[in-house]
Amino acid sequence: MKVEPRTLPGFMELLPKEQIQFNSMIDKIRSSYERFGFLPIDTPIIESAEVLLAKAGGETEKQIYRFEKGENDLALRFDLTVPLAKYVTQYYNDITFPFKRYQIGKVYRGEKPQKGRYREFYQCDIDIIGDGELSLINDAEIPSVIYTTIKSFGFDNFTIRMNNRKILNGLFAELALEENAVEIMRIIDKLEKIGEEKVVKCLEDLQISKEKIDIIMQFLAIDGTTDEKLEALQQLNFKNELFKQGLAELTEVVKNVRLFGVPEANFKVDLTIARGLDYYTGTVYETFLNDYRELGSVCSGGRYENLAEFYTDRKMPGVGVSIGLTRLFYKMNELNILQEKQESIAKVLVVSMTEKLDRALEIGTILRKNGINADVYLEDKKIKAKFKYADKLQIPYVAIIGEEEEKNGTVSLKNMETGEQEEVSVERLLELVK
Amino acid sequence: MKVEPRTLPGFMELLPKEQIQFNSMIDKIRSSYERFGFLPIDTPIIESAEVLLAKAGGETEKQIYRFEKGENDLALRFDLTVPLAKYVTQYYNDITFPFKRYQIGKVYRGEKPQKGRYREFYQCDIDIIGDGELSLINDAEIPSVIYTTIKSFGFDNFTIRMNNRKILNGLFAELALEENAVEIMRIIDKLEKIGEEKVVKCLEDLQISKEKIDIIMQFLAIDGTTDEKLEALQQLNFKNELFKQGLAELTEVVKNVRLFGVPEANFKVDLTIARGLDYYTGTVYETFLNDYRELGSVCSGGRYENLAEFYTDRKMPGVGVSIGLTRLFYKMNELNILQEKQESIAKVLVVSMTEKLDRALEIGTILRKNGINADVYLEDKKIKAKFKYADKLQIPYVAIIGEEEEKNGTVSLKNMETGEQEEVSVERLLELVK
Repeated sequence: MKVEPRTLPGFMELLPKEQIQFNSMIDKIRSSYERFGFLPIDTPIIESAEVLLAKAGGETEKQIYRFEKGENDLALRFDLTVPLAKYVTQYYNDITFPFKRYQIGKVYRGEKPQKGRYREFYQCDIDIIGDGELSLINDAEIPSVIYTTIKSFGFDNFTIRMNNRKILNGLFAELALEENAVEIMRIIDKLEKIGEEKVVKCLEDLQISKEKIDIIMQFLAIDGTTDEKLEALQQLNFKNELFKQGLAELTEVVKNVRLFGVPEANFKVDLTIARGLDYYTGTVYETFLNDYRELGSVCSGGRYENLAEFYTDRKMPGVGVSIGLTRLFYKMNELNILQEKQESIAKVLVVSMTEKLDRALEIGTILRKNGINADVYLEDKKIKAKFKYADKLQIPYVAIIGEEEEKNGTVSLKNMETGEQEEVSVERLLELVK
Repeated sequence: MKVEPRTLPGFMELLPKEQIQFNSMIDKIRSSYERFGFLPIDTPIIESAEVLLAKAGGETEKQIYRFEKGENDLALRFDLTVPLAKYVTQYYNDITFPFKRYQIGKVYRGEKPQKGRYREFYQCDIDIIGDGELSLINDAEIPSVIYTTIKSFGFDNFTIRMNNRKILNGLFAELALEENAVEIMRIIDKLEKIGEEKVVKCLEDLQISKEKIDIIMQFLAIDGTTDEKLEALQQLNFKNELFKQGLAELTEVVKNVRLFGVPEANFKVDLTIARGLDYYTGTVYETFLNDYRELGSVCSGGRYENLAEFYTDRKMPGVGVSIGLTRLFYKMNELNILQEKQESIAKVLVVSMTEKLDRALEIGTILRKNGINADVYLEDKKIKAKFKYADKLQIPYVAIIGEEEEKNGTVSLKNMETGEQEEVSVERLLELVK
């Protein structure tokens, strides 16, 4: 009785040629994060449920993979933020602050599987954590990292949208609508999706006075360049301290984002961005590819005042963003906008025209010693099968060794793209394929 | 009420400076595997228990992490071989054979945690899978990959030990001891640990005749160079066909390992190597660092006739090896033989002597645009704190920007190792830190 091999729904499993593209994106993310000096950590996928769920509740708790093993109540991590909070508390004395860390790894959520939604997916996070305090200028470094990362994917036309939660919270305080803040933010978040009219309707449903709705809509209608928006916010002349603080912070962050060298075209203030999550307390970010808005935000995050409050009294503010790579890869693949060329791992396939492999193995070793990824075709098959192998794996060069080449100490190098073939010395081979 | 943050026993969690070393080893393994053209795959950590346990039994089944989620009976992968068997069966039509794949990922075994034993650990596997058949010469490529990988760790004095299970099985057939084969192999496997005398004693306990024990011990005593051993095996003049086939295979593999350019000093025939696992049917490998034999084999594997027999009737022979990286890293760290220097992620820390960060941010951006990992110290702290940060993170250079440097368009570059400091132009800065 054979078991039918299958992969669970909601779990991405790629063919090698797609995996190469996926890994190339991970490499670019890692390299961009490291370019700014972020340090790697790698926490377990399994944690004690008590530790992992210290902060959770609601939807998250329902989605979690939780199980017992022996006497242990265990759970799989559902994000990389809770493990980070655990990590900084646990190793507090060994960590150098500000702690700039990145983590790239799989997380688990038992969501209803649907197109583009995964139960196992990669998150690629950066965060900067302060010990007690963290200067506001860090909020301007994050967009610079986002910019570098998205550029490395090959995109130019993207916008990092920034807002500050204090501006929104201050607005609600100014209007004495604090109690409805969470609901109002949820409505505002949908502005782009449902349009102005429906937003008004939703606000009316909350029994908010027409006067106040007018002010909210006036606020949301603020438009123009980044500087014009900041100026218009000033003009509102709100007295609320939180609002004023948020505006001052956003103004400062914008100034510093410029100093970090992020081009004007790639960032803007967007007052509608709230980010659903409760723990953001200041700057918030979302990033959109402007030609592919349907992707949603490809990189989001923000500032939080207290990372590890469920583990420690120590105040550890931070700021960070995350890329949900699995979904992004799926969507980019679907839209056919993966910029990574489908590249092979091997640059050269060495094939022998005869049964003898001695010289082919030698050439393979020479190529590898020169830092070139080389595969030697080892099976005793017809020459056609050997070329088919190179073709299927999209290996760009085939180095052919027949009796003539072996006698001459040469190889015949075939460029698989152009079809051109020439007999060359080993030195020349190395030059050509490098 | 705070929850006490903690990591489960048996789960490795490293500080960033150790994580950098760990990642550097993964990079070297990946790069060595890719040098030979192995293709990456990444299978889910969670699979259907039925699929994952199709082949399991005994110890493995007891150690497995298995749980229910909704109506699904799930399990965490305990190795990368079963997922590979699943993968090649499932995607058979999309795979190009011979299928050279590597996978580097975490696997899970609920073992009793003890020093150096982990419940979550990285395996780094390569395998070459044939469709129906796979030429014996592939058995000689594997040692070449092992050689390249272990060399890349910085070791020279290591030996890849090879044997062929058919030789052992043929020996037992020759002596009509097939029924005791598994037990005898288990005893032989311990030769190095328990010594000759105890091996004889153990064999006597199995009621094996003195005559036969003599032949076994004579077989095990075969010594000398690789060629002398092969010659001595010939001289035994066994009539058993399996034995003769095994000897012919081993002789051929040795010849080809030489053609693959593995130095004579780094491989040998070792007739005591059996590898406990049942599914090896031909060549087997173990790899030892000769100065650190206590590490055990750092890279082991072998040839198997039928990778996916639990999923398909299709015969898919293969050959491969695995590095258990988590345990290896732990042991190397303990022995203080990690060759990777403790390197920083950032090559340069840019610090401003004043409160103004404009120029520091600009220098940071220039460094990064030139491919140099650079961190700008953003907190408003005393200069001493800034240097302490560089020191703790072992960042080799600090680029200092004071009023003078800003005016001159220069930076003062401090080499943190030598303590030397000089004022240089930006061009010179780039040259010096590259």
